[in-house]
Amino acid sequence: MKKINVAVVGASGYTGDEVKLILARHPNVHITQLIGFSSVGETVELNNGTSRKIKVVALDDNVLDGTDVIFACLPHGEAGKHVPKWLKAGKIVFDLSADFRLKEPKSYDEWYGHKHPAPQLLKKAVYGMPEIYAKEIKKAGLIACPGCYPTATILGMLPAVKTGLVKPEIFVSAVSGASGAGKKADLAYSFCEVNENLKVYAPTTHRHTPEMEQELSKASRKKIKISFVPHLGPFNRGIYATITANLADKSTTQKEADDIYRKFFAKSSFVKAIKEIPQLKNVRGTNFCLIKPIVDARTGRLIVLSALDNLVKGAAGQAVQCFNIRFGFKEGTALYLKPV
Amino acid sequence: MKKINVAVVGASGYTGDEVKLILARHPNVHITQLIGFSSVGETVELNNGTSRKIKVVALDDNVLDGTDVIFACLPHGEAGKHVPKWLKAGKIVFDLSADFRLKEPKSYDEWYGHKHPAPQLLKKAVYGMPEIYAKEIKKAGLIACPGCYPTATILGMLPAVKTGLVKPEIFVSAVSGASGAGKKADLAYSFCEVNENLKVYAPTTHRHTPEMEQELSKASRKKIKISFVPHLGPFNRGIYATITANLADKSTTQKEADDIYRKFFAKSSFVKAIKEIPQLKNVRGTNFCLIKPIVDARTGRLIVLSALDNLVKGAAGQAVQCFNIRFGFKEGTALYLKPV
Amino acid sequence: MKKINVAVVGASGYTGDEVKLILARHPNVHITQLIGFSSVGETVELNNGTSRKIKVVALDDNVLDGTDVIFACLPHGEAGKHVPKWLKAGKIVFDLSADFRLKEPKSYDEWYGHKHPAPQLLKKAVYGMPEIYAKEIKKAGLIACPGCYPTATILGMLPAVKTGLVKPEIFVSAVSGASGAGKKADLAYSFCEVNENLKVYAPTTHRHTPEMEQELSKASRKKIKISFVPHLGPFNRGIYATITANLADKSTTQKEADDIYRKFFAKSSFVKAIKEIPQLKNVRGTNFCLIKPIVDARTGRLIVLSALDNLVKGAAGQAVQCFNIRFGFKEGTALYLKPV
Amino acid sequence: MKKINVAVVGASGYTGDEVKLILARHPNVHITQLIGFSSVGETVELNNGTSRKIKVVALDDNVLDGTDVIFACLPHGEAGKHVPKWLKAGKIVFDLSADFRLKEPKSYDEWYGHKHPAPQLLKKAVYGMPEIYAKEIKKAGLIACPGCYPTATILGMLPAVKTGLVKPEIFVSAVSGASGAGKKADLAYSFCEVNENLKVYAPTTHRHTPEMEQELSKASRKKIKISFVPHLGPFNRGIYATITANLADKSTTQKEADDIYRKFFAKSSFVKAIKEIPQLKNVRGTNFCLIKPIVDARTGRLIVLSALDNLVKGAAGQAVQCFNIRFGFKEGTALYLKPV
Repeated sequence: MKKINVAVVGASGYTGDEVKLILARHPNVHITQLIGFSSVGETVELNNGTSRKIKVVALDDNVLDGTDVIFACLPHGEAGKHVPKWLKAGKIVFDLSADFRLKEPKSYDEWYGHKHPAPQLLKKAVYGMPEIYAKEIKKAGLIACPGCYPTATILGMLPAVKTGLVKPEIFVSAVSGASGAGKKADLAYSFCEVNENLKVYAPTTHRHTPEMEQELSKASRKKIKISFVPHLGPFNRGIYATITANLADKSTTQKEADDIYRKFFAKSSFVKAIKEIPQLKNVRGTNFCLIKPIVDARTGRLIVLSALDNLVKGAAGQAVQCFNIRFGFKEGTALYLKPV
Repeated sequence: MKKINVAVVGASGYTGDEVKLILARHPNVHITQLIGFSSVGETVELNNGTSRKIKVVALDDNVLDGTDVIFACLPHGEAGKHVPKWLKAGKIVFDLSADFRLKEPKSYDEWYGHKHPAPQLLKKAVYGMPEIYAKEIKKAGLIACPGCYPTATILGMLPAVKTGLVKPEIFVSAVSGASGAGKKADLAYSFCEVNENLKVYAPTTHRHTPEMEQELSKASRKKIKISFVPHLGPFNRGIYATITANLADKSTTQKEADDIYRKFFAKSSFVKAIKEIPQLKNVRGTNFCLIKPIVDARTGRLIVLSALDNLVKGAAGQAVQCFNIRFGFKEGTALYLKPV
Repeated sequence: MKKINVAVVGASGYTGDEVKLILARHPNVHITQLIGFSSVGETVELNNGTSRKIKVVALDDNVLDGTDVIFACLPHGEAGKHVPKWLKAGKIVFDLSADFRLKEPKSYDEWYGHKHPAPQLLKKAVYGMPEIYAKEIKKAGLIACPGCYPTATILGMLPAVKTGLVKPEIFVSAVSGASGAGKKADLAYSFCEVNENLKVYAPTTHRHTPEMEQELSKASRKKIKISFVPHLGPFNRGIYATITANLADKSTTQKEADDIYRKFFAKSSFVKAIKEIPQLKNVRGTNFCLIKPIVDARTGRLIVLSALDNLVKGAAGQAVQCFNIRFGFKEGTALYLKPV
Repeated sequence: MKKINVAVVGASGYTGDEVKLILARHPNVHITQLIGFSSVGETVELNNGTSRKIKVVALDDNVLDGTDVIFACLPHGEAGKHVPKWLKAGKIVFDLSADFRLKEPKSYDEWYGHKHPAPQLLKKAVYGMPEIYAKEIKKAGLIACPGCYPTATILGMLPAVKTGLVKPEIFVSAVSGASGAGKKADLAYSFCEVNENLKVYAPTTHRHTPEMEQELSKASRKKIKISFVPHLGPFNRGIYATITANLADKSTTQKEADDIYRKFFAKSSFVKAIKEIPQLKNVRGTNFCLIKPIVDARTGRLIVLSALDNLVKGAAGQAVQCFNIRFGFKEGTALYLKPV
């Protein structure tokens, strides 16, 4: 069986953990290296119950020599520093940071507050959303995999903006579990501060907003504007996005909206337009995104609910889905996970 | 010291519990009766550490004879059946159900799905929101105290609609803790179904929507339309409302919005327009409502965050605040509770 | 590939859900029927992402005709009514209830408060703990799979009692997540009653106590007495057992205890004597049981910590592990699950 | 009304927060200073809804000049450095650290791993448990208030050891909420690591063990040995101790045990021997300790369940209770808090 040599860089965070777990069960993957920073020297059992153990090593010069594919699970800003030399060395890179998702360097500089480290690569990178770019992913060298908020929002509004169902002003209120902030010692993310609490953070300024606008504008051929309000909720995993926009035609019926969404995702492996209201517990531990459009006829609005697991479809699972497409494996290989 | 004879009807639910606890600490209240249904015969310690115990009795004919004031903590529909005879008997009633909050019987019939049991009382009832109706509450016989969602939403948008800061189409995405559903055996509210979960329920059809529209329309003298999307979150207490509307004048600045809100609530005992982002943990166990307006200049929107404890400012505390106003006690008597 | 025809009876509870999920991923299983009660008529997607759907049917006369193996996920008392006729019909039964775990009918009658429905089968049933009865399971017709508390406790003390490390009086303080109580509408298990709470229930009278005593007594050839105190904790899944007994020889060292445990479980697929302190998060969603013995030299005690996922190693995973052994598949087939 | 001038040193942690909240509602307290470290310069609203605000200041030389009483909420080791000079200056000190709880300097050095900073004061300090030392507290200059684990354990076993109900070997399995670890940025206490988790920490070596042994030995006039196993649980507040020892007389009945406990605490303001099983939710936000003895006749054991709020009866509330006794106020002044 064909095996691809894969390394995970940034293997000790919540996203890196999840990438490791999925790749360790992938029949076509050989993990060559786990590259860490704070965790260098630790020994990791690759998958519970398999005998193979692997040591986390530092990102030294030749450490990636036997590797063909890199999953980069690095903080925003960090990934951009390493990716150019990996591409030069012929590696195929699945980048889970936000560094290569925007097409316009100017937009990056503005939202991220510093110059992009490798602006020349922005045009070459493919936005790693299989529901839009499956064709491009098949030939890409650098796949910039979108994170949880953009995935939930873009998938949630894609059918609506593509078919002109709504006007181009979108409001998103989304709640994320605490793992979205990464594995870190931070008082604001300590148990007593998050438990029995709910709060907004970074309203209107969240840095993943421009990629949502970029992708939805491209899909609709109109300038889409998004007002995005993220919340931190008292649970470990999951993103629940509640999205609204005015209906273009106020007489649109619930059935019409349902039909548009159902058709749009009919062939999708992991995105489902469902009849019921999505619940986080139904996506936890899975690569699915569950979506439900609701027509509020009284007020002339479309409301879309979109739920996914931030560490799977919003991170690791999405990257492996792109990997499967890139290398011609079945799209769902290693991804039919168990909801817990 | 002047003591009012007070009975609590429906004393065993989460709201009734909270009313009892607050009243038991009120220096001007003598609790004459706890009236229950499933809990008849149980003995309740009125306040931890005080020696007084009281038995829960059934709602029999003469049980309220020595009582001047009734706090009715009954399900919607139930309260309406009893209130007329209580008023006839000269009691002053603080009704925590939704039965007397709407002014138009038609609107009640439409949203609640059945005929109003006492439509003739709707005009007489005073909407128990002290921030709007303090004067009317002082002379009222029937105070219809608003619940958690209406309180958070109306207080959150009152300054904006009254000053014409926003256009009249409002969208509300609000998350409630599980106590909002009441104390009941229901699989949907069992621990494993709520914990590590988040979901919308009753989108666009929640029955507290028309009272929000009624009160905000009255305040703004315009027809306000609200699209309301409630969520159930994995925590016991609290409502967090994220509200948005388009700015009437897109050049409104953050400072202007802050100033309008701060001035509006400057003299309010329990509503605070704050600089920081509200957090549920800061209102838990208190009668406060914390509000923050945010101008999203890029998209021309106002976003308002409004947080309160659903069992206190969203129920029991609000009712006692009304009681204090009605009888001329200091507005905050027994209400400076401890956040836990 | 060899496929076994399997039915799940009681397919809609938390345990039944988990059995379905694991079996649906098992390469050697064909699910013939899902038998339900309250859920009859519902259509279930067997595994997320596979196209196969199956309808839940009632337990009618011939519904199990094409089935060779039954996983019975029924309440205690219910299973015992059906198992005799299933065995008569030649089925192999994996019973996840407690009905066939005790060897002495008298003991069952005493602890369960009613006559055993099929006492003649008690001797034939094999206790489904692979770490003790792998040989017997290979030829068994009725495998009585132990649940969460017995599995955590028996595995935790097996090395100690077998090697005479401790005296025969054992005390167990164990905390279970709320899924241990099953999927049901019950005020005591509602979110607000369990969240931010902890309590003991059924102290000294829990009905799984006698099977712990039975198995540990058999293993040690001494009469073991267990005082068992179960707690309900505010989390969905997991059992954490903190077990203690006096050391037989007070000079026993930590190293000696660690060595005994490590050797004992050296070849076990799913039980691990670890160096660190077990944590529930490390077993969640897996079939592992993590165990750590601690010598308290100052007080002459052995303390053993034992952690597992109540729905996997404490229920569905254990049953599938027995199934794998029974039919000669690799012990871990379909069981290397992902911790979430 | 008599007012005592009180300062809080270490006013920004969870314990300091709680002390402030209680003192701000105390009719006989004037808060002169809030002394902080990381929070110097912050302005604190003393009690929600009262207009008084106070600035947190540094612990400078003369800052405590107008103060008569100090509540010291400092880490273990830190308090010991400051207390001698405070006593010399004539202040009365309520120390919430463990620095002055042990009588034997040797024991302190052994369990805390460093020399005691002021061993000469150990004999003078009064152990601040009102249920044992009310008389001594009335005249004390230094009251060493016990924390959550010792309070739950000592109160739980006091009736049993004083009356000779049990043998002197005690085992304690106790679960603490996350606030017990204090307010700090620490990965081990981050939301995702604590939520849906349970784990033991510091088994057999927890530093509060010797004070439990000291006080229970003194009460029983026997050498009591305690094996103590603390757990971290996924909730904010509360300690739940499950304690066991062998019955001295195996024929002791449940009624006898209940009677002993009920009589023992009959006059106690805040400790209640109850009939039901204690639950954390019933003590949350209160100064109560609920206790239930259980006789396991089959195994000859006594099991005692003891529950309290770690920040109230296990810290701030206990200290204020001592303060009330010391100054002749009613024992419960400012302490009939509201459970949330």
